[in-house]
Amino acid sequence: MADSLNCDLKTLSPLQLFERVTEQGEKVRALKAGKAPKDEIDAAVRMLLSLKLSYKTTTGQDYRAGLPPKDLVLINNGTTKEEDEDLVDPWNVQTSNAKGVDYDKLIVRFGSSKIDTDLINRIERATGQKPHHFLRRGIFFSHRDMDQILDAYENKKSFYLYTGRGPSSQAMHVGHLIPFMFTKWLQEVFDVPLVIQLTDDEKYLWKDMTVEKAYEYAKENAKDIIACGFDINKTFIFSDLDYLGASPGFYKNIVKVQKHVTFNQVKGIFGFTDSDCIGKISFPAIQAAPSFSSSFPQIFNGKENIQCLIPCAIDQDPYFRMTRDVAPRIGQPKPALLHSVFFPALQGAQTKMSASDPNSSIFLTDTPKQIKTKINKHAFSGGRDTIEEHRKYGGNCDVDVSFMYLTFFLEDDDRLEQLKQAYTSGELLTGELKKVLIETMQPLIAAHQERRKQVTDEVVKQFMTPRKLAFEF
Amino acid sequence: MADSLNCDLKTLSPLQLFERVTEQGEKVRALKAGKAPKDEIDAAVRMLLSLKLSYKTTTGQDYRAGLPPKDLVLINNGTTKEEDEDLVDPWNVQTSNAKGVDYDKLIVRFGSSKIDTDLINRIERATGQKPHHFLRRGIFFSHRDMDQILDAYENKKSFYLYTGRGPSSQAMHVGHLIPFMFTKWLQEVFDVPLVIQLTDDEKYLWKDMTVEKAYEYAKENAKDIIACGFDINKTFIFSDLDYLGASPGFYKNIVKVQKHVTFNQVKGIFGFTDSDCIGKISFPAIQAAPSFSSSFPQIFNGKENIQCLIPCAIDQDPYFRMTRDVAPRIGQPKPALLHSVFFPALQGAQTKMSASDPNSSIFLTDTPKQIKTKINKHAFSGGRDTIEEHRKYGGNCDVDVSFMYLTFFLEDDDRLEQLKQAYTSGELLTGELKKVLIETMQPLIAAHQERRKQVTDEVVKQFMTPRKLAFEF
Repeated sequence: MADSLNCDLKTLSPLQLFERVTEQGEKVRALKAGKAPKDEIDAAVRMLLSLKLSYKTTTGQDYRAGLPPKDLVLINNGTTKEEDEDLVDPWNVQTSNAKGVDYDKLIVRFGSSKIDTDLINRIERATGQKPHHFLRRGIFFSHRDMDQILDAYENKKSFYLYTGRGPSSQAMHVGHLIPFMFTKWLQEVFDVPLVIQLTDDEKYLWKDMTVEKAYEYAKENAKDIIACGFDINKTFIFSDLDYLGASPGFYKNIVKVQKHVTFNQVKGIFGFTDSDCIGKISFPAIQAAPSFSSSFPQIFNGKENIQCLIPCAIDQDPYFRMTRDVAPRIGQPKPALLHSVFFPALQGAQTKMSASDPNSSIFLTDTPKQIKTKINKHAFSGGRDTIEEHRKYGGNCDVDVSFMYLTFFLEDDDRLEQLKQAYTSGELLTGELKKVLIETMQPLIAAHQERRKQVTDEVVKQFMTPRKLAFEF
Repeated sequence: MADSLNCDLKTLSPLQLFERVTEQGEKVRALKAGKAPKDEIDAAVRMLLSLKLSYKTTTGQDYRAGLPPKDLVLINNGTTKEEDEDLVDPWNVQTSNAKGVDYDKLIVRFGSSKIDTDLINRIERATGQKPHHFLRRGIFFSHRDMDQILDAYENKKSFYLYTGRGPSSQAMHVGHLIPFMFTKWLQEVFDVPLVIQLTDDEKYLWKDMTVEKAYEYAKENAKDIIACGFDINKTFIFSDLDYLGASPGFYKNIVKVQKHVTFNQVKGIFGFTDSDCIGKISFPAIQAAPSFSSSFPQIFNGKENIQCLIPCAIDQDPYFRMTRDVAPRIGQPKPALLHSVFFPALQGAQTKMSASDPNSSIFLTDTPKQIKTKINKHAFSGGRDTIEEHRKYGGNCDVDVSFMYLTFFLEDDDRLEQLKQAYTSGELLTGELKKVLIETMQPLIAAHQERRKQVTDEVVKQFMTPRKLAFEF
């Protein structure tokens, strides 16, 4: 049966093949669980192997359970995903390279634009401020239509900022702060309003969590976000579970997006399957809708079609590619984007961090002692195995996590450059580099904790109350 | 290729087979459109025919484009849909029988219960009122858990009513009034609150219509509904587009339902396909959520888990089968249901009426003259071809639309029985029966129009304002 099965597999799309492999895998498991006769199980396994082979022949990739061949559908520029390519979507970031994801390749695959020196210089001219070190150091490295934002801004036409967070737990780590730190800077230098979406509904849908718990996390996370220093007169923070039932414009935009996106499309973009709940399938519209100012009639005083700029990590781009595709069809301007790289786990840049693993990063609740222990114990080192070798050959900043963290948090360019040279030459040892990082992070986290203490429930309530923001358009 | 293809078709589910036929059909069309070589087209057509044959062998039905084998998935009682069975879902009602849909068979297929004499007598005892003629005449013919509603009611535990309408146009016909007339009676005799959902979002998603137009139709339709005489102190009418953005509880219940229903399930229940927009796919949760009293914290003063009773036409049952399946999993009581038959088109009982065909029914805006002309010209007659034959053999009330309409609108049981006997015996001619119907409908419509005139925009606004309703639980 396994052989004759192949007869028509060539006619199937990669996604159909993927589904056939998945189904056959389930069948094999069911047979084994049901203690079926050995020859029956063997036949089913043979068919599974045969299907996997067809899948590999067609797609050039190994079958991976739960990871549909989305890039083959996603990328319409004629290329298919290469064997060793990085996997990047809102739920997965995977690379085999210790330096982390290849971001230049990602720009080509996603069809975005590199943030180059010209653009950084334009931002400097437009704002009259020295560009943020996240820009200078390529941490925000990619964009969509940022030049148009600047064209308009130079002609006195302003915009608003939109960013967000999925509140999956109370504990936020330093990596979660990156988009907020940058967004705060953008808000200051451009003097623009900001909306921050807390997707507690998404977390309810994806995790084993009650609606009440998700909403509680949203409010807790709001405290850490507010502690970044956002201007209360220009910032609206909202939980989906809360705001959807409190806005005359938000649901209307959601349903408009939902009318213009098919299941086939979200399957291609996000890898959803027929077994996913309908909440997940329609959720992308909820993350899309805040890109349109009419979702916030109270905030923008009913003013529509205000241009939106979204600073976010690059893994969120699929949502906004979809949004930009839909926008003109529902009479709305496309949001512009600024994309950041991923913040590396202490263990190395191969993967995105997880808020559920306390040792994978420095958390905003960590004590100075915890910070010291984590860095000393877990931060992946690019140094040599022995002091002698290190002195002779030098360390490798490209894979050293302590150095990576310093590029995020040490603002002094000269000092960073000195550290790089000293480490690369072997003059600076791993322990010494880690000490610099510890001394950088300890006061930074302590200051955050101090600011967070000032954020009362009353302040959270103010930020989360729909109200007219201070703006001029 | 067509022959070897069959090798593994036996392993496919009816739905998978359906999708294969659909895909192959599209391929054939593409080849023809692209003027492919004849032998290639012929091969593709052979494969299509072979697939269709497999489909028929597996399902016992002919493949019909756009109509997935939903009943095979839907009905878990081991029966499959028969060749000549009626098709009933929220968008299709098809039967080949001039008497209309076979409702006894539908009860078996849907797994609901017949409203029998015992139940009608219980309603009479519980309310102390003569049962509505819709109950006496089997117009409301099927139920789910009505006995439990009565058990609780007899123990002084009350419930609330929920019904609705999809406002696809300004024009409502008399058939649209059936659930509202009956709901009004239920509200009166049980003295209970009522919520009425206007699914303007559904109409926006399904039709070529703007959000604004759909909302406008909702408000227009609300006037006709209010004109049925609902108690303003006990009735809340809401548009989804409006209320979703104004309720702290509605969206929370929607997202709870959305988490517990997969795409596979809505595909099975409603026949959605991968090409449907994600708005349609997630919509069933929006029709489900008003079955839970926590969707209306303002209405029920925050009181949760109040039992819900839904009077509706049987074609809406798929939504509530889904709702009843989800309810216990999200800690909510299952809604009970009362199902009505379909109101026949003037042209005959084979199909459900369409609000877009002005001659398919009597509209609430029709003048006395229009009513007379429509009935005389379009009402399908069960009479004989000649007066002589009619006098000799008599007319057939089972297929006569004028008689059917009278069972809906002529309240006097004795008069109706006299008419039936006279028509069946041949004593009463078609023209005379039509005259009775005209004389019944003209004052009824005129009175409705008179009441509708009293319904000002201000009254609509009052009905549509979320507010505490008068109730005791």
